[in-house]
Amino acid sequence: MNSPQQAQKRPLAVLQKAITKKATVRLKTDVEYRGRVSNVDAFMNLILEDAEEFEGGRLSANYGRVIVRGDNVLYVKLESSL
Amino acid sequence: MNSPQQAQKRPLAVLQKAITKKATVRLKTDVEYRGRVSNVDAFMNLILEDAEEFEGGRLSANYGRVIVRGDNVLYVKLESSL
Amino acid sequence: MNSPQQAQKRPLAVLQKAITKKATVRLKTDVEYRGRVSNVDAFMNLILEDAEEFEGGRLSANYGRVIVRGDNVLYVKLESSL
Amino acid sequence: MNSPQQAQKRPLAVLQKAITKKATVRLKTDVEYRGRVSNVDAFMNLILEDAEEFEGGRLSANYGRVIVRGDNVLYVKLESSL
Amino acid sequence: MNSPQQAQKRPLAVLQKAITKKATVRLKTDVEYRGRVSNVDAFMNLILEDAEEFEGGRLSANYGRVIVRGDNVLYVKLESSL
Amino acid sequence: MNSPQQAQKRPLAVLQKAITKKATVRLKTDVEYRGRVSNVDAFMNLILEDAEEFEGGRLSANYGRVIVRGDNVLYVKLESSL
Amino acid sequence: MNSPQQAQKRPLAVLQKAITKKATVRLKTDVEYRGRVSNVDAFMNLILEDAEEFEGGRLSANYGRVIVRGDNVLYVKLESSL
Repeated sequence: MNSPQQAQKRPLAVLQKAITKKATVRLKTDVEYRGRVSNVDAFMNLILEDAEEFEGGRLSANYGRVIVRGDNVLYVKLESSL
Repeated sequence: MNSPQQAQKRPLAVLQKAITKKATVRLKTDVEYRGRVSNVDAFMNLILEDAEEFEGGRLSANYGRVIVRGDNVLYVKLESSL
Repeated sequence: MNSPQQAQKRPLAVLQKAITKKATVRLKTDVEYRGRVSNVDAFMNLILEDAEEFEGGRLSANYGRVIVRGDNVLYVKLESSL
Repeated sequence: MNSPQQAQKRPLAVLQKAITKKATVRLKTDVEYRGRVSNVDAFMNLILEDAEEFEGGRLSANYGRVIVRGDNVLYVKLESSL
Repeated sequence: MNSPQQAQKRPLAVLQKAITKKATVRLKTDVEYRGRVSNVDAFMNLILEDAEEFEGGRLSANYGRVIVRGDNVLYVKLESSL
Repeated sequence: MNSPQQAQKRPLAVLQKAITKKATVRLKTDVEYRGRVSNVDAFMNLILEDAEEFEGGRLSANYGRVIVRGDNVLYVKLESSL
Repeated sequence: MNSPQQAQKRPLAVLQKAITKKATVRLKTDVEYRGRVSNVDAFMNLILEDAEEFEGGRLSANYGRVIVRGDNVLYVKLESSL
């Protein structure tokens, strides 16, 4: 088993490495944002570029750059494996 | 990959650099505030100048300077890329 | 960009400097308290003097000195710029 | 401006000094407890002596000594200025 | 005024001293547990012995020893002053 | 009175000692899990072995080993005193 | 009894060791994700590979790699004992 310090960083480290990749960010409210993750921090605060908002699977808005507060996040789905 | 300390600051650093820029702050309640971000801290507490409140896309109030507690924030959208 | 430590204090520092100024404190429940901010701390716990409570824009109660727990706060609006 | 450490203690320090004074503790649920604050801590956990419970402005229960967990608190109103 | 460190411990210290006393633990859901507090910690996690559960003032269950997670607690009422 | 550090560990220490004992874990949603506690940590994250799920007192599912996130816990009832 | 530091890591350590095993992640919303846990951290943030989403026991979506924010988790069920 790895050290706790390593363990603690991993899912966030995967997100870090996913920078510039396309991702879907599902919020606890079930709204989704799709875009390129240009950065993320330890709270899962995320910067999305060229973000699109989807509600009920339907495109509901186009954003430019949006900074999502991490505590709203349900999951982040990466479009391609790393 | 960057050091965890760098990673942890980034989305907030982007907000910091956005000072004096126009931004839209969407709250978890779906109310929006639009104005210039004059400062932000690690909790995403934000100072907005010349803030306007929108509900359902409709202007509902004009504020001067307003300090929004960070835990209410869903996302911050920057009007122009940095 | 400023040091993270400076950044972290700013919105609260603005509130600190606002002491003795009139302010409106909007809670997450949409109740509002208006009064003079006589102090504030890092959790946004606030002391309001001569506080008035408004619900739906209507004066609903007069308080003397009231200490509002910070986690209830949606925003603080300062009556005059600093 | 005062040091952050001083700023951080103030609303709680006011509560500390209010010990033995009559106070009204309004909870987030809108229930109120009235009694003498015999102590308080950094989480706003409060000890009330001779506490009375009010719901909708009506006395609903008499308690002896009650320890209220701070995270339930909306505000504390001090009966007399300090 | 006492040191902040002393202040921070007091309501919990009172609970600590109440060990073996009868107490009523009211939860945020308005369910009540009555029993002897055999221990408590800084999160207000509580061990109750010979605990009885009341809903709407009616005895709804008998428990032996129950460990209540502190974040569910609204207040703890001590049956006798200390 | 004991030192604060000792006080802080006690209810969790009791849970620790309860390892291999049968326990009922009631969640905030009123769902219950019954099984042997094979471990617990400071967040009250619990490992239950041979866990059964009950809803409204009725067995609703059989699990093998389940790791319950501590923040969902209302209480843990130990089947026998320690 | 073990040291508190050991105690604190155990349920998460079990999850760590479960890496590459099949698991069911039940969320607080009762949605379930099934897949291989490829990593987990101290907040119970989880990386699931080949994740499937189930609502009401019915397969509702297929995901590739998904990073679930830990605070949404109700429990993690491991398909086989370790």
